[in-house]
Amino acid sequence: MPKTIEFFFDFLSPPSYLAYTQLPGIAERTGAEIIWRPMFTIGLHLLTGNTSPIMVPNKGVWARQDVQRFAKRYGVPLNINPHVPLNILPALRGALVAQEEGSFEAYCRAIYTAMWVDGADLSDPAVFAGVIESAGLDAAHFAEAIRSDAIKEKLKADTQEAADRGAFGAPTFFIGDEMHFGQDRLDFVEAAVALE
Amino acid sequence: MPKTIEFFFDFLSPPSYLAYTQLPGIAERTGAEIIWRPMFTIGLHLLTGNTSPIMVPNKGVWARQDVQRFAKRYGVPLNINPHVPLNILPALRGALVAQEEGSFEAYCRAIYTAMWVDGADLSDPAVFAGVIESAGLDAAHFAEAIRSDAIKEKLKADTQEAADRGAFGAPTFFIGDEMHFGQDRLDFVEAAVALE
Repeated sequence: MPKTIEFFFDFLSPPSYLAYTQLPGIAERTGAEIIWRPMFTIGLHLLTGNTSPIMVPNKGVWARQDVQRFAKRYGVPLNINPHVPLNILPALRGALVAQEEGSFEAYCRAIYTAMWVDGADLSDPAVFAGVIESAGLDAAHFAEAIRSDAIKEKLKADTQEAADRGAFGAPTFFIGDEMHFGQDRLDFVEAAVALE
Repeated sequence: MPKTIEFFFDFLSPPSYLAYTQLPGIAERTGAEIIWRPMFTIGLHLLTGNTSPIMVPNKGVWARQDVQRFAKRYGVPLNINPHVPLNILPALRGALVAQEEGSFEAYCRAIYTAMWVDGADLSDPAVFAGVIESAGLDAAHFAEAIRSDAIKEKLKADTQEAADRGAFGAPTFFIGDEMHFGQDRLDFVEAAVALE
């Protein structure tokens, strides 16, 4: 049996970005396969009754410090995006398009870098198009493809699936039925696939 | 300068219990002094707009698994108390009495063991008295002392202090102005006092 980690993530979530930076190392050390599952966290919150940490002012202050501490530990850049909250749906739908077309890795790297390193406003169609082009992909094609009902429905269904399987926020990891929440649980995720 | 870790905790919180089991090791390894700060987490939540993880059903299921995973990692017993939620105020006020009278260590051990190993209903005065007696302390004296306005006001003021300094839940650690939230951040806490 191949070992797999299903990674439910959102581009809007700094902890998802942090997990994204660490998962390749886990895959390399354990031989596990990462199954990338884009989801719409705001939708997941609505489905499960959860709220963002930033809704509690003290928690928001701490959460921003906390992700920077982990970024420093991991040795990765992280700059809080001044345009957040922004409409992340086009970028998430684009991830599904890229998965179908085999360009996910380049797409995902470009979007995460734009969001959490460059501080780009991905809700601006021109900025979004520029980021896609920077990944060597066809922005006009993506602009068209993300408008399809099938893509919209898939993101909705995948978010519903996450809720149905017990998720309540991003990032969430599944190793079979075993669920872990948060980039700060990657050590448990790695242990789960290492021992399987 | 002596290195100190202020530990804001609640007996009602399994993550506080987990931190309680690990702090002596951190103190031993780093030479840091632990300053024990009982607080009323429900009050802190009300002051800061936070809510318990168990208010989100999916999060509650995960949170219960998560604390068991850490208990296993730490090699400490943890049994979810069937009487939770229960009125924890008498036990918290008793901690302040025990601190004043120099019996805190025995008191704290007895209360945490009753709550998260034995599953005792500490809101029952007879059970509470039995736990205090098991620590070699005078239950009748505690029953009287926790009714004082000074003790009640101190718990309230300490909880307010936690909120004012940025806390929003339990456990919270301060190393000077540096705040960490959650027993899952004890590695950052230890690093902070080790490097100071």
